[in-house]
Amino acid sequence: MIIIMKPNASEEAVKKVTDLIESKGLTPHLSQGSQVTIVGVVGDKSRLAGSNIEISEGVDKVVSVTESYKLVNKKFHPDDSVVPVGNTHIGPGNLTVMAGPCAIESREQLMETAFAVKKAGATFLRGGAYKPRTSPYSFQGLEEEGLKYMKEAREATGLNVICEVTSAHAIEAASKYVDMLQIGARNMQNFELLKEAGKSGMPVLLKRGLCATVDEWLNAAEYIISEGNPHIVLCERGIRTYETSTRNTLDISAVPVIRQKSHLPVIVDPSHATGVRAYVGPLAKAAVAAGADGLMIEVHPNPACALSDGPQSLTFDAFEKLMDELKPYCELSGRRISF
Amino acid sequence: MIIIMKPNASEEAVKKVTDLIESKGLTPHLSQGSQVTIVGVVGDKSRLAGSNIEISEGVDKVVSVTESYKLVNKKFHPDDSVVPVGNTHIGPGNLTVMAGPCAIESREQLMETAFAVKKAGATFLRGGAYKPRTSPYSFQGLEEEGLKYMKEAREATGLNVICEVTSAHAIEAASKYVDMLQIGARNMQNFELLKEAGKSGMPVLLKRGLCATVDEWLNAAEYIISEGNPHIVLCERGIRTYETSTRNTLDISAVPVIRQKSHLPVIVDPSHATGVRAYVGPLAKAAVAAGADGLMIEVHPNPACALSDGPQSLTFDAFEKLMDELKPYCELSGRRISF
Amino acid sequence: MIIIMKPNASEEAVKKVTDLIESKGLTPHLSQGSQVTIVGVVGDKSRLAGSNIEISEGVDKVVSVTESYKLVNKKFHPDDSVVPVGNTHIGPGNLTVMAGPCAIESREQLMETAFAVKKAGATFLRGGAYKPRTSPYSFQGLEEEGLKYMKEAREATGLNVICEVTSAHAIEAASKYVDMLQIGARNMQNFELLKEAGKSGMPVLLKRGLCATVDEWLNAAEYIISEGNPHIVLCERGIRTYETSTRNTLDISAVPVIRQKSHLPVIVDPSHATGVRAYVGPLAKAAVAAGADGLMIEVHPNPACALSDGPQSLTFDAFEKLMDELKPYCELSGRRISF
Amino acid sequence: MIIIMKPNASEEAVKKVTDLIESKGLTPHLSQGSQVTIVGVVGDKSRLAGSNIEISEGVDKVVSVTESYKLVNKKFHPDDSVVPVGNTHIGPGNLTVMAGPCAIESREQLMETAFAVKKAGATFLRGGAYKPRTSPYSFQGLEEEGLKYMKEAREATGLNVICEVTSAHAIEAASKYVDMLQIGARNMQNFELLKEAGKSGMPVLLKRGLCATVDEWLNAAEYIISEGNPHIVLCERGIRTYETSTRNTLDISAVPVIRQKSHLPVIVDPSHATGVRAYVGPLAKAAVAAGADGLMIEVHPNPACALSDGPQSLTFDAFEKLMDELKPYCELSGRRISF
Repeated sequence: MIIIMKPNASEEAVKKVTDLIESKGLTPHLSQGSQVTIVGVVGDKSRLAGSNIEISEGVDKVVSVTESYKLVNKKFHPDDSVVPVGNTHIGPGNLTVMAGPCAIESREQLMETAFAVKKAGATFLRGGAYKPRTSPYSFQGLEEEGLKYMKEAREATGLNVICEVTSAHAIEAASKYVDMLQIGARNMQNFELLKEAGKSGMPVLLKRGLCATVDEWLNAAEYIISEGNPHIVLCERGIRTYETSTRNTLDISAVPVIRQKSHLPVIVDPSHATGVRAYVGPLAKAAVAAGADGLMIEVHPNPACALSDGPQSLTFDAFEKLMDELKPYCELSGRRISF
Repeated sequence: MIIIMKPNASEEAVKKVTDLIESKGLTPHLSQGSQVTIVGVVGDKSRLAGSNIEISEGVDKVVSVTESYKLVNKKFHPDDSVVPVGNTHIGPGNLTVMAGPCAIESREQLMETAFAVKKAGATFLRGGAYKPRTSPYSFQGLEEEGLKYMKEAREATGLNVICEVTSAHAIEAASKYVDMLQIGARNMQNFELLKEAGKSGMPVLLKRGLCATVDEWLNAAEYIISEGNPHIVLCERGIRTYETSTRNTLDISAVPVIRQKSHLPVIVDPSHATGVRAYVGPLAKAAVAAGADGLMIEVHPNPACALSDGPQSLTFDAFEKLMDELKPYCELSGRRISF
Repeated sequence: MIIIMKPNASEEAVKKVTDLIESKGLTPHLSQGSQVTIVGVVGDKSRLAGSNIEISEGVDKVVSVTESYKLVNKKFHPDDSVVPVGNTHIGPGNLTVMAGPCAIESREQLMETAFAVKKAGATFLRGGAYKPRTSPYSFQGLEEEGLKYMKEAREATGLNVICEVTSAHAIEAASKYVDMLQIGARNMQNFELLKEAGKSGMPVLLKRGLCATVDEWLNAAEYIISEGNPHIVLCERGIRTYETSTRNTLDISAVPVIRQKSHLPVIVDPSHATGVRAYVGPLAKAAVAAGADGLMIEVHPNPACALSDGPQSLTFDAFEKLMDELKPYCELSGRRISF
Repeated sequence: MIIIMKPNASEEAVKKVTDLIESKGLTPHLSQGSQVTIVGVVGDKSRLAGSNIEISEGVDKVVSVTESYKLVNKKFHPDDSVVPVGNTHIGPGNLTVMAGPCAIESREQLMETAFAVKKAGATFLRGGAYKPRTSPYSFQGLEEEGLKYMKEAREATGLNVICEVTSAHAIEAASKYVDMLQIGARNMQNFELLKEAGKSGMPVLLKRGLCATVDEWLNAAEYIISEGNPHIVLCERGIRTYETSTRNTLDISAVPVIRQKSHLPVIVDPSHATGVRAYVGPLAKAAVAAGADGLMIEVHPNPACALSDGPQSLTFDAFEKLMDELKPYCELSGRRISF
């Protein structure tokens, strides 16, 4: 932690700050210049909790030096993590493709989609049973019935299955039927849910919040891992900006940024990021080229009739074509697309 | 709903769209121009759920005409709501001031603050028992113990008390001790929590999400009201922007915007909006001048030692001074500050 | 300047950094902790231009301690500036109201508006002769003809007049006819224009860029003042965010933030900030309550026929009513509205 | 244009709107529903300039149907443009790589870089002679002297050369020495400069503004093309968001969005977008995979000593390695990297 004093800070003000630091058993380091004085504090920052130095007299600002996330921090855990899920693993060497409908609408819709995405080369079936929708009057999902269809699809196809969970109750239900839990963007800072997901021990896909910084996202992951669950995969799905030509703005830089800051795998969801199916293909390729560990793509037997997010869903044919086109990009990035 | 066709859309494409609309029992209205054709659809939009017209051939874009929130919409409920809470009400004629510490740290801290804010003229005591914190290693709150102190403070001072809830469990606990529930910014789209708050029948303060649009915020309120609970007050607390000189950017325009779009009362939290106590006073005055129904302000016996949000908390003296300065603004806005 | 080393930085890496600092005639101060080493550098930062320490081996990040703007910085010039313009001054004690049409459309329109805003209590007439418009097909302004009408309006009413300038040529022309130059939001980082405005010696109203930080805005002002022209007034006019219910998001916090960081006066333009005339009144009051030194408000004889920004313009009656309502807010803030 | 009436709009209010439309020689189309009435207007929207229908009584909102840019609009000009510059062309089939230092610092620095980027496969040398810098105290460029070095580098290597221009004067000077003009992000809505660039007839690289929407960007291009100059290439260089782990947020979706909305080529600048050299490689690959027509990359003989943007500049070795890695991505996208 670094404390920057105001240009006109008195000697007493500086002394008050250094005394406070020493009183907590830490050592202050002074750098006195012609314009400003800087006080460096190295050590266990948590000892200063409840000492709001930024409002001490004469203090201009306080700059944090170390990240608050530790267990997901690459600085302390330099090796990239491999997250085992079902019959595969997510991380180095693999390109994991999760595909399926935004919402599970019926047994038929799901089974049909499962066989189609399996044939095209996906290794995960995605599908929403609990749908967080902006309006209470929109379709809210089939809940546990949907989870049962997911399990059936898994048994029929050998695909791993993943479902979003929106409450402790949903985690409990999903744990019986699926291979991996998804925490959605709107719940990225639902800390109660993160703790429950941590306790479940299940692999968790943690989507980035609509306006979460990378640091907040990694702190959210820290909530899960600090409960003893290291099986976390991050998913970039677009952030909120002023631009309206896409539903969100895919922050493709998040892929190399996460690679530098954390050891957790990171995948990309170009469907939610853009909201427009014509943009899904180019951005899927971009994500693989940027080094993503996988993709989450919405596929629907008949997008024009989808109850949720139809405009961004690919048809079976379009998905199969995209998977073919992705193969050489996958090879270039040194990853295998199948398990 | 309005469907705008592409300049080169064929007659068949237009017919396909109008046929689809008619098949749902609705009537399309065609406007054919030299460059583009527009199809207007008036009526019950929900009949078109699962008809993703935007991806029909020849369609350029689809524009929604009506808001998806109905019960909180001023267009259909033109009279401003008055929300009764404890021994007072929030809405026209009143300026409700909620004050207290970010986090309840101890019985002493809370009681001392309660008497101080009461003396200065506040009618609500705020205080967090369940704290959603970015890092799992930050202080997380006293939970039910804190709620008990709140009840005690209410009984000792006659203040109404409000606490944030972060789970169904917390709602159940808080309902026993406090007058009003608060849904925090990070949970504004935690739809499970919104539904539970709706079912509780308790008055709810709904903070705006960190990057929620006004429309998403009103849809979140619609989740609560559609469960039969109309006792909702909105709270603007700053939105996320690129500017870093304040913690968030107070969207002061939200006050007149909400006044135009909804009948619900709206208050302002200048403490969380700025994160800097020197800015709390000017923005509190601005909020009252802009027409807010109230204020939420952080007050702490010793901000330098606060376990959460110390830098934005006012001392007792500063709060009392601010309340004095607010009085004439309050009168100008035609509101009474005390109950 | 503070240099934060990576946790695993070698001693040689640290030495390389301190050697580099010493080679520039500066003194490094080391703070060595269990996790990280911090190197403080105090002194003339400009000596390190061209030494990109952030990419030296073992360096995690570099944090700047002092602002790059000096002459407009309150730290070094603590007294609030008073900017003399025409027959008045902008700054402490005064509330300056600039009113008029977005664009000058005709001699009649301008003269009629000038008399109306004068009667209502404005001290400045605003009006655009050079209009920066998003589309080349929108009305671009009357240019020098418009400037002549401004001068005529000044002579007829005694109002001070202000016009936006968009090029060196426009500055030259405007200097002959008006009292104050306006640099618009889109040109806030048109550094050539800033330098020319600095050289002109004319009072300058510097609008905040559409997505400028407060620091970038003050650096833009530094371009003007560093040419020897201290007569600068800042104007907050809304920033770009994701919210669409207003044209821009008025950053009302900018008023107290500027007050803390700079000695320059700051006014607020609620018309451009919101784009909706129903919101202009509440936000004008909020701006005065927050401590602004003035307001810029769009007024038009017939907003429904305005060639630019009609929807946000007030009628003469609405403006007169607003000015009456503003008076008590003005008194509360210790300012006089007339000269 | 579509006019949406308020639910309670009177028949007279609707009639007033339709009368106004008819008075301008246009035909209104009414769609009357149970809740709202919609009025469609098809035809030459410019006839309604100065009729601000949004503020007519009973009007809820007005929705624009067609884009204001015409000449750069793919709807009216479906074939992708090819922009000839110097000895090459930018557009379909080619991947144009522009490389060089942020700022031209000396003849030696520029010549050395020119030979290095040429050897690695670039076809353009970039280098700034007029530098728009946030602070007036930062290095501002060598101006015309720098342009002369650019010409010399072109003659020595056969590379095409491109320079940013920041004023009409700079356009005049640059036209004598370089093959292509660059309009920087900060000047994207400097409309005077756009018009001058249009009049020059020189090929223009138009960078996206720091917070420009895609539509504003295309309107800026329309300023150039409407002066008779169709030789425009767009450059995505990151937009401003709340995220701070990169200097800007690369909006990779802009590539397919532009491809859909306009016939102009679009290239990507990963150096300015991220500000961090470790991220340049992954994002350069992502840009090619997303379909970009080219890349602009900062290269410097000694990034640690660069006077501008050193931290984001690649060394010669790193650039050569990146060019090698880009080759297979280039082939996959069906483009040739050399001329």
